[in-house]
Amino acid sequence: MNKNIKINENERIDDLEYKNLKIIQRVDGFCFGIDAVLLSDFSKNIKKGSKVIDLGTGTAILPILLSAKTEAEKIIGIEIQKEIAEMAQRSILLNNLENKVEILNENIKSLTERFEDGSFDVVVTNPPYKKLNTGLTNENKIKYISRHEIEANLEDFISISSKLLKNSGSLYMVHRPERLGDIMFLLKKYKLEPKILKFVQSDISKPPKLFLIKAVKNAKSFLKIEKPIYVYDLKGEYTNEILEIYNKNSK
Amino acid sequence: MNKNIKINENERIDDLEYKNLKIIQRVDGFCFGIDAVLLSDFSKNIKKGSKVIDLGTGTAILPILLSAKTEAEKIIGIEIQKEIAEMAQRSILLNNLENKVEILNENIKSLTERFEDGSFDVVVTNPPYKKLNTGLTNENKIKYISRHEIEANLEDFISISSKLLKNSGSLYMVHRPERLGDIMFLLKKYKLEPKILKFVQSDISKPPKLFLIKAVKNAKSFLKIEKPIYVYDLKGEYTNEILEIYNKNSK
Repeated sequence: MNKNIKINENERIDDLEYKNLKIIQRVDGFCFGIDAVLLSDFSKNIKKGSKVIDLGTGTAILPILLSAKTEAEKIIGIEIQKEIAEMAQRSILLNNLENKVEILNENIKSLTERFEDGSFDVVVTNPPYKKLNTGLTNENKIKYISRHEIEANLEDFISISSKLLKNSGSLYMVHRPERLGDIMFLLKKYKLEPKILKFVQSDISKPPKLFLIKAVKNAKSFLKIEKPIYVYDLKGEYTNEILEIYNKNSK
Repeated sequence: MNKNIKINENERIDDLEYKNLKIIQRVDGFCFGIDAVLLSDFSKNIKKGSKVIDLGTGTAILPILLSAKTEAEKIIGIEIQKEIAEMAQRSILLNNLENKVEILNENIKSLTERFEDGSFDVVVTNPPYKKLNTGLTNENKIKYISRHEIEANLEDFISISSKLLKNSGSLYMVHRPERLGDIMFLLKKYKLEPKILKFVQSDISKPPKLFLIKAVKNAKSFLKIEKPIYVYDLKGEYTNEILEIYNKNSK
């Protein structure tokens, strides 16, 4: 590390096992999960030269993966928590991505003042899943803010996405099944037409635990629901599709 | 048939292979499919004493199956096509269901004048799947009207369902994946909160071809997505869950 990037005591460097990418994560904080990896795969067809913004970027896992999986020109990651944004910035330097990825420490609500309407081709987001005052409250503050709609709610994420996107621009989002109705309603309310929906099941015998959705600004109504992703086979081993998404050898 | 029920030349009597139920269908018309059978199973927990209305009842397959699977007090089937409504009425007589099931030959748009708001506990509907001017147009007229939104569109079906339902009443619907976004939006627009969603896949390797949805009037937002129904196993044979729904012995 000739750049002499600081790693704090409560942090570690994790190897993403993909194109030599690494990420700094807090030992006690919210670490990236399968959600972010699946979302990066779901949005990997982002066109060459695209301007991309990631709302609620956390450790910058999505900008880092998308910088390797796509030929996007610029990827901006927004993170409201100062210490997380600062850690994400160090991960960008660690991966020599500073010319491609920019981390902004802001509330997403300020973005419509900072950027003109229609400034982006693509929005990606893995927003907080839980409504305020639901779920566990005995988490540390960083985990709590990462998981709950404290600083911005689902409607903010979607309405701001719509403003930031140009006409025919795409929003890629991952979220939990219980919010699908709210999300469909809000997407259509803000002229983001749901076009592709993909569920993620632990295995074929389980209900979905996540979904991935692509919505296109001002598109016509016609939704394609794809085959679900099954994470495990019935022996409890990763399926080939998951091994491929994680760039491991298939069985 | 001591009631001497007339069967026309272009009709046949099909055995539903369940509690000795039968149904009259036209040889050249729109016959009931797996959609109706799955919807009857999905809505079989309708409470004892419920007042139920089926919007677009066709051959009356849903009222006939629900009369056997539930303890609903009254089931009204609405059918706009005169010759189909009349045929459905003969199926009701054939099954001795005339005290429980009533067939009305009307456009669903007239229902809000005929019935007071909040008159029903449950609405079931297997509406036309296709928008006007889409899909095949070389079908005969009966099939065309059964399949396309000619006389009432999706928004009519949902807005009328909302008016007919009492507070906390349930709508059960089957439809095609490409309309899920429209349906979620319209349900919420008319205060019918999506509560249970279940997809139907041909097998585990295929995308969904249908979905079943339960929405509850004025309920809180929290959607439960259930494990999909797989119709066939990978050997091309019916799965046990489908055999059970059709009241056949499991493998």
